[in-house]
Amino acid sequence: MADLGESGDLDTAWRTLRAGLIENRWLLTSRSTALPGLGSTALAVYDGVAALLSRTARETFGPEVTPLRFPPVFSAHMLEQTDYVASFPQLAGTINSFRGGQGEYRDLIATYGRGDDWQPLFSPTGLALTPAACHPLYAWLEDGEVDHTRLYELTGDCFRHEPSEDPMRFVAFRMREYVRLGTAEQAMTHREQWLAIARSLYETLGLEVDIVPANDPFFGRGGILLAANQRRDEAKWEVVTEVYPGTPCAIGSGNYHDTHFGDEFGLRLPDGSTAHSACFGFGMDRTILALAARHGFDPTTWPGAVQVELGLAG
Amino acid sequence: MADLGESGDLDTAWRTLRAGLIENRWLLTSRSTALPGLGSTALAVYDGVAALLSRTARETFGPEVTPLRFPPVFSAHMLEQTDYVASFPQLAGTINSFRGGQGEYRDLIATYGRGDDWQPLFSPTGLALTPAACHPLYAWLEDGEVDHTRLYELTGDCFRHEPSEDPMRFVAFRMREYVRLGTAEQAMTHREQWLAIARSLYETLGLEVDIVPANDPFFGRGGILLAANQRRDEAKWEVVTEVYPGTPCAIGSGNYHDTHFGDEFGLRLPDGSTAHSACFGFGMDRTILALAARHGFDPTTWPGAVQVELGLAG
Repeated sequence: MADLGESGDLDTAWRTLRAGLIENRWLLTSRSTALPGLGSTALAVYDGVAALLSRTARETFGPEVTPLRFPPVFSAHMLEQTDYVASFPQLAGTINSFRGGQGEYRDLIATYGRGDDWQPLFSPTGLALTPAACHPLYAWLEDGEVDHTRLYELTGDCFRHEPSEDPMRFVAFRMREYVRLGTAEQAMTHREQWLAIARSLYETLGLEVDIVPANDPFFGRGGILLAANQRRDEAKWEVVTEVYPGTPCAIGSGNYHDTHFGDEFGLRLPDGSTAHSACFGFGMDRTILALAARHGFDPTTWPGAVQVELGLAG
Repeated sequence: MADLGESGDLDTAWRTLRAGLIENRWLLTSRSTALPGLGSTALAVYDGVAALLSRTARETFGPEVTPLRFPPVFSAHMLEQTDYVASFPQLAGTINSFRGGQGEYRDLIATYGRGDDWQPLFSPTGLALTPAACHPLYAWLEDGEVDHTRLYELTGDCFRHEPSEDPMRFVAFRMREYVRLGTAEQAMTHREQWLAIARSLYETLGLEVDIVPANDPFFGRGGILLAANQRRDEAKWEVVTEVYPGTPCAIGSGNYHDTHFGDEFGLRLPDGSTAHSACFGFGMDRTILALAARHGFDPTTWPGAVQVELGLAG
């Protein structure tokens, strides 16, 4: 067989992983590319990772931990406040619905009946898909004073439109985020603490990880500059592991936002100055798939210590 | 003060509940109407209800219980297969994204920069929001033989575009569904069993419930007929409770689909005939809000037995 070169190897690697995940019912696929469900085994591992994170947060930060949950949908206006429209329009998702009356409904049904594309007959609702689990938090806190003693714990579905057959890249995926708002120092400390916690936690689960500057896919030619700025400012670090040999894949990231969200959402410190923020996000789906890639599809054969950490033993 | 009449009383009732839920941080509101987050107390009750359902299902059905999870987004084609486009277009949500290149991006940024509406510059992705937690299950099983010994347990975010300030009507909400596919008898039995389980379970939690024929908001003039058929066929029953005095509100529903999904998704029984299906859905957000309306905003003051059932005691 011919040498496929690096991208061919990568292609083979993710096809092999994908086939194994489907065969072992970790991923439940349908016509919707990159939108698989999780089977019972995957869910048990998922729940184990979620419980481990909750336990670790409470052991470390006690009553500061404040669990909240926001829905996967929010106001499209929020994509403006976070500047997501300008930075990542190709990943964003806005929501349309049918807004017409009986006459337009007749047109809709006729179009639908002919088998033609009815989606253009839907119009904007002013709603969008949440691209990051922490954005709705800033919207809830809007124009208020932040409490730096709160460690917000958020679990949320995120949407990023980058359809791919690579099982490490879902269009809809789940993040567990830990967020701190406060002074610059408090926010920076938060990111450093959680990078350390995440490294230790992933190593406990048998994953070899590295921490590298992030390289987000900002749109277009201007995006090259924005990505360079992100790396220069060391604003965002990713925890990566080699799910595919030679190709680091981010399974978590720590992001210091400076006063980006504080400015846009009017978040203040008690002295009236603008709040800084930082978040650490665990990519939940990627984490469990990395565990499957590392240890195999049957958790009863995983190292005993990993099973114990995830509550899967016995 | 003038007599507001029935709709005025209802108006007052939901405004009062909403104000209490917000003041006590059960609901975390932002600019996004009908898309609140859940605060820590609400989440603890939510987790208690979810665990109670999981426990009850396993105590009753043992290893038949098969937990799966699907994302809140799926192929828009699925809205056709379920006929949702025709029945409830006003509730459906399809997803648009930015599909252009550098030139279109310049237009987008100019529009955005002027403060004009940029949403029309996004175009259909072929994806949609999931309106019911069980629909992706049929898509996963498409063109296959069903296993009637499986009791599928699904928890999913659902989207229905009916923005309202009434806290019992979220645009994005979570359902726990139990689904059975098999013969007509197996499907009917499933619905009856779960209506009984739900009644008993809600009563254990101190909610007075009734079981009534459902009355879904099918679109337009033709929808009146579809709704009448639904009632005549007794296809769907709702478990209702009076969150607002005199106004029953559905907090669960049992739905026998006949071969609707079996036909559309090519689901077969071992003898080659078309599978029947039935689902029971617990409205998770509505259930916890009904509990707050019934027992108050502080679970530590709830009846001891309810606290024990929900794992909130001690």
